[in-house]
Amino acid sequence: MKRFKILCLVIIFNLLMYISVSAAQTHKSPSLWQVYQQSLQSAKYVDLTHTITPSMPIWSGFAQSKFQATINPKSGKPYTYKQDGFEATHYDLSTDQLGTQLDPPAHWNPDYPAIDELPATYAIRPLVVIPIQDKVAKNANYHLTVQDILDWEKKHGKIPPGSVVFVRSDWSKQWSDPYIASRTEFPGVKLEALKFLHLQRQILFHGHEPLDTDSTPNLEGEAWLLQNGYTQAEGVANLEQVPETGALVVIGYPKFQGGLGGYARYIAICPPNWKYGVSVGKIPESPLQKADKPLHWDQKLGVRLR
Amino acid sequence: MKRFKILCLVIIFNLLMYISVSAAQTHKSPSLWQVYQQSLQSAKYVDLTHTITPSMPIWSGFAQSKFQATINPKSGKPYTYKQDGFEATHYDLSTDQLGTQLDPPAHWNPDYPAIDELPATYAIRPLVVIPIQDKVAKNANYHLTVQDILDWEKKHGKIPPGSVVFVRSDWSKQWSDPYIASRTEFPGVKLEALKFLHLQRQILFHGHEPLDTDSTPNLEGEAWLLQNGYTQAEGVANLEQVPETGALVVIGYPKFQGGLGGYARYIAICPPNWKYGVSVGKIPESPLQKADKPLHWDQKLGVRLR
Repeated sequence: MKRFKILCLVIIFNLLMYISVSAAQTHKSPSLWQVYQQSLQSAKYVDLTHTITPSMPIWSGFAQSKFQATINPKSGKPYTYKQDGFEATHYDLSTDQLGTQLDPPAHWNPDYPAIDELPATYAIRPLVVIPIQDKVAKNANYHLTVQDILDWEKKHGKIPPGSVVFVRSDWSKQWSDPYIASRTEFPGVKLEALKFLHLQRQILFHGHEPLDTDSTPNLEGEAWLLQNGYTQAEGVANLEQVPETGALVVIGYPKFQGGLGGYARYIAICPPNWKYGVSVGKIPESPLQKADKPLHWDQKLGVRLR
Repeated sequence: MKRFKILCLVIIFNLLMYISVSAAQTHKSPSLWQVYQQSLQSAKYVDLTHTITPSMPIWSGFAQSKFQATINPKSGKPYTYKQDGFEATHYDLSTDQLGTQLDPPAHWNPDYPAIDELPATYAIRPLVVIPIQDKVAKNANYHLTVQDILDWEKKHGKIPPGSVVFVRSDWSKQWSDPYIASRTEFPGVKLEALKFLHLQRQILFHGHEPLDTDSTPNLEGEAWLLQNGYTQAEGVANLEQVPETGALVVIGYPKFQGGLGGYARYIAICPPNWKYGVSVGKIPESPLQKADKPLHWDQKLGVRLR
């Protein structure tokens, strides 16, 4: 019987040791490389960005942009693959308010940061997507309300502070229509909703699909945001391909000195079982895949095409 | 004695139950929002990007770029904060090979993807930083060798597949010198080292501080990379502020149709106890902080300044 007693005590001791060791391991947070390998590598990546083209929709107060092949200043002729082994592109961009954007507050208020002055923490955030596309289908001028936000929270929980909140209206599905930017009725975000998201929920910034925040005559939403030091995303795309909760968003934009808008890039990182998106290692990445046709300069469209 | 036996068995049963439940919880991978909250939010963010200015160093085969205030096409005059409530910027960029870059292979080979054709998985990756600055201090034309990579691996372990590998040379510390881009001797990367990184280690892409990959007359490294469907980063900065191992890098670039270079943004995400960088919530982010001076257009420098 004594042997049984000792055996029991040895088993109990070993089990307790195992528990204490594994508890210590559980509470040690993983390294950033482990985080990548365990959670980000297998995720689904969805691009939320419009391609910038010379003919894309633009506000009537801005001129169109022009692309051309980069000229060799010595010869005055464009560099060509055949002659020079490489090509490059010259961009004449009439505005930094183009396509998918990140507006710094200095766009409206010179006292606040320009695009190159935003902090490096504008890099990756939890992504909240609030759907209003059903209401927009009935009323093209529908604007997100505080109630829409509360309805989202009832379903998914409180919006986390510091997150990026994109408003899905499906407006961008008509992006190929060049007159889309001149419509006076489009889905917007009510000033009260912007105030709620920033003052009650402390989000980093919100974003919308149209090129303006709301359809009020004095752009009251954009005015309040940018006059008070907040940023916003405009011209966001493909929101029907991301979940309403649980994704992250990677934020990128070039760093132009004193710039007042960003030719931004937003890429959503969605859970591995998500139905849309591409995964690391599942598509050709390095080397990339050859296309079936070579790129060439299209004189009529003024852009390099396949 | 029977009571002791039962007690022992009950304790053992409960311990086993606890272990099986906690093991199940441990193996359930955290959601992406949990990953953000547990690992990314408290990280230190370091910008690895040069600010794009009209006077930045550029290869002599490209003309300088011009910035100007965006013009109202109706009045022919620039929009002003005072008159219009906002300003915007017109960029005349002679090349897409400018500052901190992401080169798609179509820069040298039209059969491979242009900048807008890179997959969305080019978004966030493990970051490896290989230091050669001590050797460069003795030989301005030093080029990274396979042995330098093996030395890094001896210290830190094998380079993970799919990672981004930046070569630290400290060349970018002289970025304020406008003649830096015309030097014929500068720190590079040997062709063998590029082949080793891609063919033996399956990295996503490498990056270097200078504006060219190597100082050979035919640019043999860049030629091999881009002719074979690989991408590369150029003009990377601030590598002395990131760890040699254990950080992640966020990759951003605008999506110009048929574009052959990226005005890229690279932001390193470093461990929370890292000595450099800024953290989410520890600096003003939303609203941002007012500057001590307003932005104004500087006619002489051709850029908006404080």
